[in-house]
Amino acid sequence: MNARIREILNWYGSDSAGTLANIARMLNHGRLAGTGKLVILPVDQGFEHGPARSFASNPLGYNPLYHFELAIEAGCNAYAAPLGFLEAGAHHFAGQIPLILKLNNHDVLHDEKDPLPAVTGSVEEALRLGCSAVGFTIYPGSSHCGHMYEQLRAIAEEAKQAGLAVVVWSYPRGSELSKEGETAIDVVAYAAQIAAQLGAHIIKVKLPTAHLEQAAAKKVYDAEQIPIKTLSERVKHVVQSSFDGRRIVIFSGGAKSDDKTVYEEARAIRDGGGFGSIIGRNSFQRPKADAVKFLQTIMGIYAGDVP
Amino acid sequence: MNARIREILNWYGSDSAGTLANIARMLNHGRLAGTGKLVILPVDQGFEHGPARSFASNPLGYNPLYHFELAIEAGCNAYAAPLGFLEAGAHHFAGQIPLILKLNNHDVLHDEKDPLPAVTGSVEEALRLGCSAVGFTIYPGSSHCGHMYEQLRAIAEEAKQAGLAVVVWSYPRGSELSKEGETAIDVVAYAAQIAAQLGAHIIKVKLPTAHLEQAAAKKVYDAEQIPIKTLSERVKHVVQSSFDGRRIVIFSGGAKSDDKTVYEEARAIRDGGGFGSIIGRNSFQRPKADAVKFLQTIMGIYAGDVP
Amino acid sequence: MNARIREILNWYGSDSAGTLANIARMLNHGRLAGTGKLVILPVDQGFEHGPARSFASNPLGYNPLYHFELAIEAGCNAYAAPLGFLEAGAHHFAGQIPLILKLNNHDVLHDEKDPLPAVTGSVEEALRLGCSAVGFTIYPGSSHCGHMYEQLRAIAEEAKQAGLAVVVWSYPRGSELSKEGETAIDVVAYAAQIAAQLGAHIIKVKLPTAHLEQAAAKKVYDAEQIPIKTLSERVKHVVQSSFDGRRIVIFSGGAKSDDKTVYEEARAIRDGGGFGSIIGRNSFQRPKADAVKFLQTIMGIYAGDVP
Amino acid sequence: MNARIREILNWYGSDSAGTLANIARMLNHGRLAGTGKLVILPVDQGFEHGPARSFASNPLGYNPLYHFELAIEAGCNAYAAPLGFLEAGAHHFAGQIPLILKLNNHDVLHDEKDPLPAVTGSVEEALRLGCSAVGFTIYPGSSHCGHMYEQLRAIAEEAKQAGLAVVVWSYPRGSELSKEGETAIDVVAYAAQIAAQLGAHIIKVKLPTAHLEQAAAKKVYDAEQIPIKTLSERVKHVVQSSFDGRRIVIFSGGAKSDDKTVYEEARAIRDGGGFGSIIGRNSFQRPKADAVKFLQTIMGIYAGDVP
Amino acid sequence: MNARIREILNWYGSDSAGTLANIARMLNHGRLAGTGKLVILPVDQGFEHGPARSFASNPLGYNPLYHFELAIEAGCNAYAAPLGFLEAGAHHFAGQIPLILKLNNHDVLHDEKDPLPAVTGSVEEALRLGCSAVGFTIYPGSSHCGHMYEQLRAIAEEAKQAGLAVVVWSYPRGSELSKEGETAIDVVAYAAQIAAQLGAHIIKVKLPTAHLEQAAAKKVYDAEQIPIKTLSERVKHVVQSSFDGRRIVIFSGGAKSDDKTVYEEARAIRDGGGFGSIIGRNSFQRPKADAVKFLQTIMGIYAGDVP
Repeated sequence: MNARIREILNWYGSDSAGTLANIARMLNHGRLAGTGKLVILPVDQGFEHGPARSFASNPLGYNPLYHFELAIEAGCNAYAAPLGFLEAGAHHFAGQIPLILKLNNHDVLHDEKDPLPAVTGSVEEALRLGCSAVGFTIYPGSSHCGHMYEQLRAIAEEAKQAGLAVVVWSYPRGSELSKEGETAIDVVAYAAQIAAQLGAHIIKVKLPTAHLEQAAAKKVYDAEQIPIKTLSERVKHVVQSSFDGRRIVIFSGGAKSDDKTVYEEARAIRDGGGFGSIIGRNSFQRPKADAVKFLQTIMGIYAGDVP
Repeated sequence: MNARIREILNWYGSDSAGTLANIARMLNHGRLAGTGKLVILPVDQGFEHGPARSFASNPLGYNPLYHFELAIEAGCNAYAAPLGFLEAGAHHFAGQIPLILKLNNHDVLHDEKDPLPAVTGSVEEALRLGCSAVGFTIYPGSSHCGHMYEQLRAIAEEAKQAGLAVVVWSYPRGSELSKEGETAIDVVAYAAQIAAQLGAHIIKVKLPTAHLEQAAAKKVYDAEQIPIKTLSERVKHVVQSSFDGRRIVIFSGGAKSDDKTVYEEARAIRDGGGFGSIIGRNSFQRPKADAVKFLQTIMGIYAGDVP
Repeated sequence: MNARIREILNWYGSDSAGTLANIARMLNHGRLAGTGKLVILPVDQGFEHGPARSFASNPLGYNPLYHFELAIEAGCNAYAAPLGFLEAGAHHFAGQIPLILKLNNHDVLHDEKDPLPAVTGSVEEALRLGCSAVGFTIYPGSSHCGHMYEQLRAIAEEAKQAGLAVVVWSYPRGSELSKEGETAIDVVAYAAQIAAQLGAHIIKVKLPTAHLEQAAAKKVYDAEQIPIKTLSERVKHVVQSSFDGRRIVIFSGGAKSDDKTVYEEARAIRDGGGFGSIIGRNSFQRPKADAVKFLQTIMGIYAGDVP
Repeated sequence: MNARIREILNWYGSDSAGTLANIARMLNHGRLAGTGKLVILPVDQGFEHGPARSFASNPLGYNPLYHFELAIEAGCNAYAAPLGFLEAGAHHFAGQIPLILKLNNHDVLHDEKDPLPAVTGSVEEALRLGCSAVGFTIYPGSSHCGHMYEQLRAIAEEAKQAGLAVVVWSYPRGSELSKEGETAIDVVAYAAQIAAQLGAHIIKVKLPTAHLEQAAAKKVYDAEQIPIKTLSERVKHVVQSSFDGRRIVIFSGGAKSDDKTVYEEARAIRDGGGFGSIIGRNSFQRPKADAVKFLQTIMGIYAGDVP
Repeated sequence: MNARIREILNWYGSDSAGTLANIARMLNHGRLAGTGKLVILPVDQGFEHGPARSFASNPLGYNPLYHFELAIEAGCNAYAAPLGFLEAGAHHFAGQIPLILKLNNHDVLHDEKDPLPAVTGSVEEALRLGCSAVGFTIYPGSSHCGHMYEQLRAIAEEAKQAGLAVVVWSYPRGSELSKEGETAIDVVAYAAQIAAQLGAHIIKVKLPTAHLEQAAAKKVYDAEQIPIKTLSERVKHVVQSSFDGRRIVIFSGGAKSDDKTVYEEARAIRDGGGFGSIIGRNSFQRPKADAVKFLQTIMGIYAGDVP
């Protein structure tokens, strides 16, 4: 194991050898193995948005095996999906890529301003399917946030006892936040801090804007002149807010956008000290060959091969 | 075991031998044994609609033994019913037909726009009664959907550990859906996807109409020109939305209608790649001899004996 | 064991020897032993209506030992009461009469249109007190009905595992039912069906009137010309709605009324194929000698000794 | 053991030797040992009303050891308090006086018309602290009454399995009761009956007035001419309503009042067949020597030494 | 062990040797070892207020290791923090300072007038991380107070069984309290009493003002002329309200203020018989050397070295 990976594992000194091994498994897999950087393929949109909205533009994606293949061919560090999608392929692809079982999900046939996703999997299922980690979404700002934190607490404790890693999607959302506030830099940094305090090993947040949502926080950002003008500065602040960089923080790609923008964002994440990306729709909603090339360009940016 | 059944079982590679054996048991039983097609007799209407509305037109149906006999004589793949109905005959007919214990039920003495059925059975009861599978209804779109998904998660996990199969009735319904929306093609396809992601082995949905309910989905159906004009095209889309056909999807018969319509629907299901039907009221609300003939005609359509 | 009892036990083929023995214990006890008919003494009115309203007219009834004595002297098949009343006498009268522990109760110091009784006992307590059965009340039509069904499910499963019988009081009540609807024939028959589907061995309902409450049901009763004019026809329909007579259904006596009426009702129950009565206030709210004579007259009607 | 104690224990024939021993321990302790009468010191006012309102008038009472000493010196049968107060002295005074751990409590920093106390202790804690009994408060008439009954059910079952006695404070209160109704004779008698039916060994109620709260009950009290004019008649009716005197019923002292009134009440309790008193504020809110004398006068009234 | 520590441990006679050892561990650690006084460093503001508001003024505080170092260098008795912060350093600093795992937390992305923090840790996690105690916040006055008391009851029972100490943050807050009432002397004294009755070993409250919030309490404070004019008198009353000084009560520092004020408060705490301080923002929001000096001055005041 190289020095950088050893250094990262050292941040998680309170964890068991089993959990450290699973974190290492993800860090040492694929195109970015050993760099300390991560690109993860997540495919939960079939559940979250519906099948046609997710897969009609590239119908191969209806097939759960396709996403395993894409993640493996592109050299992603891990593949994350809900129970059904993993069950459908875990046996075929056993041992070929680290898996993350997403343990809670939400659909838009019934939607709310203050969401509470359903818990749709368990640590035992993750073990049965040979996963390296469990994933869990929290919505800080939701009136149900306390319930989600308590669900995460129980799941994280059980996962750590089982030697798994814990990946937390921390997405501010709820009736007291403005739409703009969901990606405000003070709110995203706070969401990263909450995930870290709840015991996440890997934290996934959205890329923040320069907007400041909370009056009490704005006062401090102004007084201390915290640099948040460029995206790379904001990434740096989020990384700092995640235990001064002692927790792995990765950023989500969001809705489909043009490649140039995604590459620019990856450069900003890299320059700000971020640990990588988790890219779903931008990768599986295009032909596979194209997607592999796209993902590898991003990985190249993180690895330093692509400027 | 023939090649088609072997192929189907292969889709469920993450499951235990016990669960695979129970799926095989249903696929290899009755008139359609070995075809990969299924016709299941479900009788939960006594609970869901009341005894007279269900059985007065054919009073033999008040007797729980009658339905075992009907399913066996007609050569159905399985018989599904709530606890009481199964308890009343499981001992007499032990080993004669695969049984599915329906684990949640709802009655109309108290009805709501956003239904939450009561859990009225358990995996342990299913084992005690010698069942091959448990059945569970979810209502995507209900404000209680998250609670139902979590109930299903726990039940499915326990059922799989016990070597049972999991059959999910996925019926969109709730205050945010229009009446027409409950059978809209985008909504039914989404309901099938949710059931698949929750880990169902067999999914039961209603036959979809060409209506599109959700604005965000409609945009995609239009843009991608997904074919949904004929019933058989819509069945095909639902099958595709169930992990590209790698999950067994069957369709419900609905309220009593004329035989010709039911036969037409069976042909559309067959031509669209559907796996069969689950037919209650149309079969047990007529004289037994007539019902056996009716069910065997449908099975003939699926088997290819009847055009 | 005589043929009739053997026939009845045969309906419960899925149950353990322990549960069958306890059903047989009740059927083979007292004045009606071996007839397949049952008269049960229930005394939960102290809890449900308060002590003075229940016992002031015959103050011996304040004493819990009194009701054991009354049930034994009259030759009832069983005695049913809440935890406190059974605890106060179970030791003294051990082995002298089958006991039914009523596991949920409700009082009128706080009343609601949609009642949810409190669970006030357990299967373990029933075993400790040497009971043959547990009793549980459900209120189909209450907005809390789902919760009660789920409580009953858990209790019935546990009781059956412990070799006890399950007696269900099924009393339609709730904000969507009219007062008249609570005893409407369609509603009472539906309530009996629900109890049977939930796995009850013995079902207790109120005597139904000829009123039809639900529009969708009324259509069927009219179309199929189900005979419901006489009380005995209605009893027959309720018995039919209880798995075509393959579940024991008994009828409650209700508030105190004149003896002639009660005898008439017993004859109608007998002629309609009902299995007997559960009679509280009409028996314990009069002097003991009188009550014994009264109960034995009813038993005589069921046994065929009294015309 | 004398005949009266043996007679009382005989009422609890369904209980284990362990529970009987603990009931006997309380009946055979202190000044009233062997008389079948009880005077208990309860100190939960620090939690229920706040420290200054409870202890400022006699500041020694801030110290938890003080109340142990007072109860021991006065010769009370038992001392009842919440977890913290018992933990603070149980070790020092081990074996010197029977203890009752009060398992639920309520404070007035947040108050409601329909109270639901928090469960603040457990049967396991009672065992750890060497208690003879657990105490639990129910508020019949509260919209939360069902929840409290279910909590009591579980606690009482567990306590009996552990050989402890169960003391129930049954205090009618809630939005449907008038203030006067909380101590109405029909309501207090009903509250005693509910506690008895829930399995209480010792029942604590407030002294009832001659008011009749419930219309349906009033009709019976009038028709049956139940004597409720004098306090002693009302005590007798409450005792009768507690299984015809086969459950121990004691009465609370309420807020501080002049000694003569308290002595008069004790005489009425004695003459009506009540089993004693539970006296908090009237005893610990005065100097110790004075309190000991006061409590011993009351005990004298019960013992028959004081007229 | 010196006499004062022995005396303090003696107050907790009902606790296990394990718990006593952990209380002793805190009392015998750091600059105040053996004095019976405590200064604890708590850092939960990252969760409670957000990272920038907490750490931007001294950015070293983003790093969880920093706070371990600060607490150790300053010679604090213990360091308290949520799960994530402790996990990040417990391994590195194992055995160097007693740790308190804060088991519930609240963030301001979603705030309420009646707060209910989420449970974000467990006793098992505290054991895994080598902690001496668990910390838990209750908000007396919140409409959720009963729920928090019940959570604390379960956690405290489990912690004591595991040989840990229990530290309770008791902060009155809720819709029925005025803003001024949250620190009113009657309310703070009541909050300390509630924590003590719930079984806390160490109680943390805010410094009280002379305001009296509750009418019923005010009457008693006036009648009994309880001295509450000076801060030191009020501290004395709070200590008295905590079992007459037989429970350890410490006071929080609150928002950042000038050093002189903090020193004055420490003197008042010392003179009123308080046991020390828990000081977060005032210490970690300044340069470390400065913070160490500041904390040691406070410790000097408690130790008597600084006037």
